[in-house]
Amino acid sequence: MDYAALLTRAREAALPALDRGRPAGYIPALACADPRSFGMALATVDGEVHGVGDWRKPFSIQSISKLFALALALHHGGPSLWRRVNREPSGNPFNSLIQLEAEQGVPRNPFINAGALVVTDALLSLTGDAGGSVLDFLRAESGSPGIAIDGDVAASEAEHGHRNAALAHFMASFGNLENPVEEVLAHYFAHCSISLDCHDLALAGTFLARHGIRADGSRLLGRSDAKRVNAVLLTCGTYDAAGDFAYRVGLPGKSGVGGGILAIVPGRGAVCAWSPGLDAIGNSVGALAALEDFTERSDWSVF
Amino acid sequence: MDYAALLTRAREAALPALDRGRPAGYIPALACADPRSFGMALATVDGEVHGVGDWRKPFSIQSISKLFALALALHHGGPSLWRRVNREPSGNPFNSLIQLEAEQGVPRNPFINAGALVVTDALLSLTGDAGGSVLDFLRAESGSPGIAIDGDVAASEAEHGHRNAALAHFMASFGNLENPVEEVLAHYFAHCSISLDCHDLALAGTFLARHGIRADGSRLLGRSDAKRVNAVLLTCGTYDAAGDFAYRVGLPGKSGVGGGILAIVPGRGAVCAWSPGLDAIGNSVGALAALEDFTERSDWSVF
Amino acid sequence: MDYAALLTRAREAALPALDRGRPAGYIPALACADPRSFGMALATVDGEVHGVGDWRKPFSIQSISKLFALALALHHGGPSLWRRVNREPSGNPFNSLIQLEAEQGVPRNPFINAGALVVTDALLSLTGDAGGSVLDFLRAESGSPGIAIDGDVAASEAEHGHRNAALAHFMASFGNLENPVEEVLAHYFAHCSISLDCHDLALAGTFLARHGIRADGSRLLGRSDAKRVNAVLLTCGTYDAAGDFAYRVGLPGKSGVGGGILAIVPGRGAVCAWSPGLDAIGNSVGALAALEDFTERSDWSVF
Amino acid sequence: MDYAALLTRAREAALPALDRGRPAGYIPALACADPRSFGMALATVDGEVHGVGDWRKPFSIQSISKLFALALALHHGGPSLWRRVNREPSGNPFNSLIQLEAEQGVPRNPFINAGALVVTDALLSLTGDAGGSVLDFLRAESGSPGIAIDGDVAASEAEHGHRNAALAHFMASFGNLENPVEEVLAHYFAHCSISLDCHDLALAGTFLARHGIRADGSRLLGRSDAKRVNAVLLTCGTYDAAGDFAYRVGLPGKSGVGGGILAIVPGRGAVCAWSPGLDAIGNSVGALAALEDFTERSDWSVF
Repeated sequence: MDYAALLTRAREAALPALDRGRPAGYIPALACADPRSFGMALATVDGEVHGVGDWRKPFSIQSISKLFALALALHHGGPSLWRRVNREPSGNPFNSLIQLEAEQGVPRNPFINAGALVVTDALLSLTGDAGGSVLDFLRAESGSPGIAIDGDVAASEAEHGHRNAALAHFMASFGNLENPVEEVLAHYFAHCSISLDCHDLALAGTFLARHGIRADGSRLLGRSDAKRVNAVLLTCGTYDAAGDFAYRVGLPGKSGVGGGILAIVPGRGAVCAWSPGLDAIGNSVGALAALEDFTERSDWSVF
Repeated sequence: MDYAALLTRAREAALPALDRGRPAGYIPALACADPRSFGMALATVDGEVHGVGDWRKPFSIQSISKLFALALALHHGGPSLWRRVNREPSGNPFNSLIQLEAEQGVPRNPFINAGALVVTDALLSLTGDAGGSVLDFLRAESGSPGIAIDGDVAASEAEHGHRNAALAHFMASFGNLENPVEEVLAHYFAHCSISLDCHDLALAGTFLARHGIRADGSRLLGRSDAKRVNAVLLTCGTYDAAGDFAYRVGLPGKSGVGGGILAIVPGRGAVCAWSPGLDAIGNSVGALAALEDFTERSDWSVF
Repeated sequence: MDYAALLTRAREAALPALDRGRPAGYIPALACADPRSFGMALATVDGEVHGVGDWRKPFSIQSISKLFALALALHHGGPSLWRRVNREPSGNPFNSLIQLEAEQGVPRNPFINAGALVVTDALLSLTGDAGGSVLDFLRAESGSPGIAIDGDVAASEAEHGHRNAALAHFMASFGNLENPVEEVLAHYFAHCSISLDCHDLALAGTFLARHGIRADGSRLLGRSDAKRVNAVLLTCGTYDAAGDFAYRVGLPGKSGVGGGILAIVPGRGAVCAWSPGLDAIGNSVGALAALEDFTERSDWSVF
Repeated sequence: MDYAALLTRAREAALPALDRGRPAGYIPALACADPRSFGMALATVDGEVHGVGDWRKPFSIQSISKLFALALALHHGGPSLWRRVNREPSGNPFNSLIQLEAEQGVPRNPFINAGALVVTDALLSLTGDAGGSVLDFLRAESGSPGIAIDGDVAASEAEHGHRNAALAHFMASFGNLENPVEEVLAHYFAHCSISLDCHDLALAGTFLARHGIRADGSRLLGRSDAKRVNAVLLTCGTYDAAGDFAYRVGLPGKSGVGGGILAIVPGRGAVCAWSPGLDAIGNSVGALAALEDFTERSDWSVF
């Protein structure tokens, strides 16, 4: 398959959409991103990488880090994690408190903020350093040792983090946090503030396309667990738009308010598209348009 | 692949689970079903059919008919249907009124009761006979001309249908019904009361595995639309357990309180499992266990 | 006390507010009301009546009839009614379905639409004619035998009554209606469509100021029950603005989207103000301003 | 009126109910209270005090302090407080997060926990010491200089205060707190942990019966403001049971999970009943029964 041509086409499909999005405004480091930026990279299960546009320009990983935190927590701790977080789509905005109350402090899934805080808490208990574990994994899989946490972003997140603090205290009131609220938040903000590029993220996602095998051939997740993480990505990975994303793109995927979207094609590879302008739900307009075009033209779809 | 062996194994995996389920109790015709019944059938895209257990024993299609109503409404009316019904998973019980109010009478997806009423209303406007259209389609695809609406079930549904009447009036108050409430309800109860067996349902589902092509080679849905219906099935097809179903089974599927579950394997075929005992959410315990075993052992998974 | 002067002052306080309200728009008979109309009447426990402005111009009673339906249902059936309807304020819009679902078909209080439907159903069972019972009571207490149901309004209510039909079916699904949905709705629309004037309503309300004694000296409610109905009026009588009404006016009161508000002063009398323009919550802007001025200047307050 | 006899009767009415309640269990200092304790005191507007049972036994004021924090915040800061907190009854449990989200961080009323945190924050900004202001006021009005904050209770509240921390951070995320979350919580826990007896609370409440005049003759609130605080008490003072409390007792009142209830009779006086056993909603079973009996026998009711 001519991947380069498909990526070029996908970029062309995305360009007219870029003006319709707006960068996330809640922290300065994200608000000043150039909405005309667009990058896209594809990594095959064999480690082949292709890219287009700003694919080597670093951006903030934001919620996409939740995927890696989940995989690492499952790797270190096993399925008991599912007693502390469900895996059902949330019918509400990604940081809503409503369902959390109705379900007694057990978040709907690991990709809403509440769920990711529980996963971070578990990973912290298991490894002693949740933020560092995610960082090390991303460096290793991407072969980019320079990937780092952006301290300015992390500081801004903490400063504007009252909602996440509310979520963490709320779950603590139900007994669903093991570590002090402040530590869990610090590790959560750390791994959400990692800065990396499309090339790095596409490579880092290939372990899910290889059914759980890392770049170095070691196994991170069992075959069934890798399938299951893909299933959770498909049903819950894009906030309150998971149904629409599945409808339009048809792949397991995870988005972040930094503008990135990472999609997995089981058995084939991983694709990462990035553009800072977001739609009302918080997904990148450009990345979504590019992925929709890519899956429409290629045979990379699960359905 | 030795389908017969896989089905036999799946049945064995399901048998110990049967006692944990309870038949739907809200109408007499369903309540008196034997919870020890179990059947399973597999139909390939080539029309090959295999079965095990009570696979030729008829049962009530219930909500699985919503899938066929949706496909037919899209066939006759096109994508404008999506202006009247969303395609996001519902974070609430399948017949909840809460999100319907929050979203101004537009149901979350076509598989909750409210959404299926809108689809039925659309199909009624397009064809003049929503119940008959679904019935004709099922007869044709399965090659079983004897498939019929169970009048007792339909009458019981109508008698106990106050919640569906509430939903229909509620959507009518937002202007989201075109036909009189009573007519929409009658057609809805009709297609939900169709009686058929695992063999019939597996065959009737193969058009989605063939990317939209019917048994006679004609096209019901375009390739993209067929992919998209599979995506909606995966994210919304099993009430408030869609995430768990994707996690455990990993296939697009639709369940009904009659105890049936129909799952689609794009490019390969369709599988229908049936056992009347339901879990708390309304999905068949036995059918779920059988499908989980089947996908675990075969390579029939989308992830 | 110089009641005439107080009423004149209250009218002056209301006049500048009239332009801020808008008549109810959901049925034609209400939408065409003149928003500049304003009337107010006061009836003492001794039967003395004073009025100002359009106090003899008839208007649609709308939800104020719920108060009389409640009193009559308690008179005929006693306190067992409270097993079918609660008496807590509703934190949601007056016709919301949300809390009704959470509380298993038992409405929050007798003055939201759902609760009034249950009260109407009970009154229908007890008397055989819920609409007629309310009408007879109003005629007797006001001494105005010409009070009648406005057939046009009742027909319009029925035509636009999908939300009330949804509520009724919904409660029927929980077993909380004794009569057929259609009959309950017809009686409900009948007593809400009664047309009468400020003079009539003020007189009809005095039984609550007389601790349960009707105009002819007979007892409708026991002293404790009359106190209790006043309590329910204060906490629940003005939709989602009961707290604000208590804060500003400080009296038990019931409003209707016809623009009327009836307020009770235990031991003293009843006041009815009317002006068709409503605020966003559905209470008359002019009537509210007039009652606030009246209670500020007089010593007619419960606090 | 023979107040002593009325109190004795009320105590007799309460005694059989004591066994039906259970002391609050969330902090040790409350859980070990003797459920058979019962005290009641009445203070007239003239400063006359009567008591019965354990009326001089100190207990934890808990949420009743919210009433004094509100009065002091209105005294020091005026009506602008109402831009930061509404005055509508809450249709949800007293510390629910749901409506807070729906209403953008503005609590429903000053007596749910979220609202009391906002009031405490305002009082802290206005006086520099919210906890101390409430304490000083209670000492002065009751003539009991020994009233003090119970440090053990305050420490326990802080230790088990994740839900209140969640509420505070949540409101801070909407910009509805002026002081650091930790400081607001500390002052809130301080005034909720004041220990005093029925005698003290009844006297401290009389300023509302005197239409805003303190024990020393100075004015805390204007006449209208005192009326309005009484109105908010009646509609919102007893968690999700305000409607039922109004129905049964018919007085403005405020309850606390320490087992106390303070009720106001405008123009007459204040009554405080106390017994540690609570009903499911968090109101004292014994205090409620005593107040119901008292208002039934006396003419102390607003309706």
